[in-house]
Amino acid sequence: MLNESVVQQLKSIVGDAYFRIDQEALIAHSYDGTPMLQALPDGVIYPETTEQVSEIMRIASQYVIPVVTRGSGSNLCGGTTPVSGGIVMVMHRMNRIIEIDMENLTATVQPGVITGEFITHVEELGLFYPPDPSSMKISTIGGNIAECSGGLRGLKYGTTKDYVLGLTAVLPSGEVLKTGGKLTKDVAGYDLTKLLVGSEGTLAVVTEAILKLVPKPKTKKTMVAMYKDIYGAARTVSSIIKQQIIPATLEILDNATIQVVDDFAKIGLPRDMEAILIIEQDGEPEVVERDMASIYHICEQEQADRIEMAQTREQAEQLLTARRSAFTALARLRPTTILEDATVPRSKIADMVLKTNAIAKKYNVSIATFGHAGDGNLHPTATTDARDQEEVHRVEEAFAEIFEAAIALGGTITGEHGVGIVKAPYLEWKVGTAGIEIMKGIKAAFDPQNILNPNKMFAKETKKRVVIQHG
Amino acid sequence: MLNESVVQQLKSIVGDAYFRIDQEALIAHSYDGTPMLQALPDGVIYPETTEQVSEIMRIASQYVIPVVTRGSGSNLCGGTTPVSGGIVMVMHRMNRIIEIDMENLTATVQPGVITGEFITHVEELGLFYPPDPSSMKISTIGGNIAECSGGLRGLKYGTTKDYVLGLTAVLPSGEVLKTGGKLTKDVAGYDLTKLLVGSEGTLAVVTEAILKLVPKPKTKKTMVAMYKDIYGAARTVSSIIKQQIIPATLEILDNATIQVVDDFAKIGLPRDMEAILIIEQDGEPEVVERDMASIYHICEQEQADRIEMAQTREQAEQLLTARRSAFTALARLRPTTILEDATVPRSKIADMVLKTNAIAKKYNVSIATFGHAGDGNLHPTATTDARDQEEVHRVEEAFAEIFEAAIALGGTITGEHGVGIVKAPYLEWKVGTAGIEIMKGIKAAFDPQNILNPNKMFAKETKKRVVIQHG
Repeated sequence: MLNESVVQQLKSIVGDAYFRIDQEALIAHSYDGTPMLQALPDGVIYPETTEQVSEIMRIASQYVIPVVTRGSGSNLCGGTTPVSGGIVMVMHRMNRIIEIDMENLTATVQPGVITGEFITHVEELGLFYPPDPSSMKISTIGGNIAECSGGLRGLKYGTTKDYVLGLTAVLPSGEVLKTGGKLTKDVAGYDLTKLLVGSEGTLAVVTEAILKLVPKPKTKKTMVAMYKDIYGAARTVSSIIKQQIIPATLEILDNATIQVVDDFAKIGLPRDMEAILIIEQDGEPEVVERDMASIYHICEQEQADRIEMAQTREQAEQLLTARRSAFTALARLRPTTILEDATVPRSKIADMVLKTNAIAKKYNVSIATFGHAGDGNLHPTATTDARDQEEVHRVEEAFAEIFEAAIALGGTITGEHGVGIVKAPYLEWKVGTAGIEIMKGIKAAFDPQNILNPNKMFAKETKKRVVIQHG
Repeated sequence: MLNESVVQQLKSIVGDAYFRIDQEALIAHSYDGTPMLQALPDGVIYPETTEQVSEIMRIASQYVIPVVTRGSGSNLCGGTTPVSGGIVMVMHRMNRIIEIDMENLTATVQPGVITGEFITHVEELGLFYPPDPSSMKISTIGGNIAECSGGLRGLKYGTTKDYVLGLTAVLPSGEVLKTGGKLTKDVAGYDLTKLLVGSEGTLAVVTEAILKLVPKPKTKKTMVAMYKDIYGAARTVSSIIKQQIIPATLEILDNATIQVVDDFAKIGLPRDMEAILIIEQDGEPEVVERDMASIYHICEQEQADRIEMAQTREQAEQLLTARRSAFTALARLRPTTILEDATVPRSKIADMVLKTNAIAKKYNVSIATFGHAGDGNLHPTATTDARDQEEVHRVEEAFAEIFEAAIALGGTITGEHGVGIVKAPYLEWKVGTAGIEIMKGIKAAFDPQNILNPNKMFAKETKKRVVIQHG
């Protein structure tokens, strides 16, 4: 509960209409894209300027009130669930594209800009912003920065952090920090820009970002290769990279995913295949032609059962849209869908998919796997029912073992969703006690009172490690 | 002075031969590539393994002894000068390329590997490691990581930080931290990998790095365009980018540099030109041809006086070698050479060069400017004489004004050399008091006793800002 004086002070910063404590607003901001997590905030505030954010943080600091910054709340790690109450700060009013600088190939944007709209806007100018999380139709650039979002183009183009050149960010104290600039080279002190990207709203509130743009690829082509043996699909991924072709997109769907996606999208995916790959290359026409011909040949060599080249852009979009719909399609099966993002070196993709299947079987749970084969970022997705605590417990145990397996294969617990509250009990598995201590030290340097998104990233207790049976 | 017990303990870690306190060793490690800076260490140690580094750091921690990690000492910011005494830890024995992973396109290396040798090695395997600081023939990968080195290919390919995927690093306490992995996507907690890159040996000692490799470009072509008007050269840079061509290299040399480089390299550079651009594109043959034709056309449009395409690879190498020799060539002129790296958005290159010339004139000092026009990273280089204190003072004042001008144009005080001791008094100008405080907090989180490369990056006193005359 916020006291009346705080309420009045916050209202005087943003105006009565933009600080809400009505139940409707509180409930609407009590959850995000993450299943089985809900917590009511004490208030919801909608700032319009960096100065307002700064004033809000001064009040929050003075009264030690938790502040959870939120874009569209599409994250899957509980990152924007206000588990400690306090204020949810919604960035939707700060949604301007401030500048597209054609000489420096940069965009300066506010955090509330919708990613998909931004991408469309820069593409109309002949430019390209590669990070394309599946949520991009609703997610915001600010949210993408908080989570360091990836997407389907990560292999060739990298993720959000590769496109953030500078930030304006408000510290918990209310001070305004400016990092980087329209510069590809800047080594003035520690790289606070890259540190803030992926810091999940725990260090500062980003109020403006300078983003790097690249020339828009002149053309792209898309194919789908279908395999009766998942190792054939995995070998294809490795062979493509080994031949030094870096496709723009290289997605894998396992059999379980193929079934549900086709039920949903009805585009005639082959239900008898163990895996399919969706492969896209973009760039200069000759190079795309040559790469796709080489990839076709590799797919044949690795015993793809069928290979189909999209004949039109519409056909290609249909394929990619089907892939992007995997989460939605799976979500139709049962009441609760848990989408994870265990990530391994790309050479370990097949091992990881098969290991995941074995773990699912062991715990008698339904897990379909799809994801970004080219960069090793898989999405094992469990369909379950939150009301069945016993089953949910088995799902959680299965995921713990999946994370352990990913780490054992040289991977990580999260490739692009973030730690938030969901992965916090596992973070130490990846970064060790030394890593946790350093990260806590960094958190304290930015936020000594622990008011920004508290109780995220660092768990009260690390989950006990699963004993993996090797071999 | 190290006490006898410490000396014995350090010797027992690395063996008698690898811990030295003789004058020869101390003097040889009392300076680096930075002019006018020298300070004797108390000892020089040469570890061979991560475990040894860990044990050394435990001793250093216990006795609160400064440790300065050093590769080849080619840095230009005083980064490896042991200004607080203590131990210089030389990483040359840890010089193995541990693995090249052709499936994941990664290299795992120790920090003492020489950058140029590493580049040659991976190119022989058909792969490519783009960061190419001019010092690469002697600099080490570890040093490049410490400074986040750039080079001539930064515009198209980025800098060292874009190629570091994972690190093994020893904390001041002796604990071993592992970050990242063979992963392009990893958001498990704060990005400590990118934070350590460019941290100038102040946070941890890097003992192993996983580097990203990319396919080697199939071909490259090089041209030189010469201008009687430096704005023509600058407009060319802008026009190239505006037409969405991103060349591999886009270097500028001003008239003063042209003169000395040609005196040195004798390749017939045009001494009457105000500026030349050296432009290189690499990639697929058709694309390189097309880009170079477009660039040629742009150079013509922007009134280049002469444009020459290198006819052979040797001719091209000669041009690039001449460019890389600019520092050496300038160093022949007078006893002391101060090479800086003020960096601006690429659209401000011409303004910055002209501003630099005006400042040099104002302070009556000799400053030649060359550098990476494509990414705005300029190298204004003063030739002076350390024995003439009055002149050196004028040079310092001129550089202070150059840094101020760079910041006023949206740039930074250092694009690729680092802060070290030389830029420390100016760091606050770029990052503000809030930035300095946060960085100090990060330093304290890693190194609470301040033993790793102490008295670097953070100055006792920030230099008073110069009043810039605008207009």
